[in-house]
Amino acid sequence: MADWTLHAQLAADTVNLGDLPLSRVLMMDDANYPWLILVPRKADLTEVIELDEAEQAQLMREVTHVARALRELTACDKLNIAALGNVVTQLHVHVIARFRHDAAWPKPVWGAAPAKGYEPAKGERITAELRRTIGLP
Amino acid sequence: MADWTLHAQLAADTVNLGDLPLSRVLMMDDANYPWLILVPRKADLTEVIELDEAEQAQLMREVTHVARALRELTACDKLNIAALGNVVTQLHVHVIARFRHDAAWPKPVWGAAPAKGYEPAKGERITAELRRTIGLP
Repeated sequence: MADWTLHAQLAADTVNLGDLPLSRVLMMDDANYPWLILVPRKADLTEVIELDEAEQAQLMREVTHVARALRELTACDKLNIAALGNVVTQLHVHVIARFRHDAAWPKPVWGAAPAKGYEPAKGERITAELRRTIGLP
Repeated sequence: MADWTLHAQLAADTVNLGDLPLSRVLMMDDANYPWLILVPRKADLTEVIELDEAEQAQLMREVTHVARALRELTACDKLNIAALGNVVTQLHVHVIARFRHDAAWPKPVWGAAPAKGYEPAKGERITAELRRTIGLP
């Protein structure tokens, strides 16, 4: 993991929640949706299929762990989980809590509504709750 | 798997390629993109996190296997892998081959362009190639 650095666009759009064994956990600074992103800390990755089988299983465990935490915290109607990467090619997995009343429902979130940064106190509260529920220091 | 049946909307939109140990493999009848869908054959599933850890690992292996076959066949620029399910809630995983010149690039495919059914001979050729590359009878 020595040569890995987070892509500048991902860094600019998110708050860093901390690291799981394989992935960095980020929260999108978009109050439209509770929206996490996992980024495996391994250099030069663009596709899930470039991970070896043990790493893929670890990524799946981390996605599941984070998705359960997000659902527990938000009581969302649906989880959306996706590895797209058409724009930012560094491998990253979206884990998004969706609600029937949210800004894009039932469409996918990408490109649907302009990002709406969290009001600072609310952003701090939700990042603290997410860190605690995910088990990040 | 006795009580499982494929959701009518998924059945209507796709061609059945066959079954892997956990999932049915479908091809979307949309010539805009080479687009596969995996549906775990277990009743009443809506979320990946409702699978147990062994089933999740198996789903990940099947997604990887199918994604590698799709990339090998299509030489695509990017794979898009997603479990959304906001409209059709039966758990299904999209595995889509994307090209910089395709109908939606760089946006996600959902809602971007009207589905364009395969011309029959082309549809038969691609389903045969997909079955052979994935290893389905």
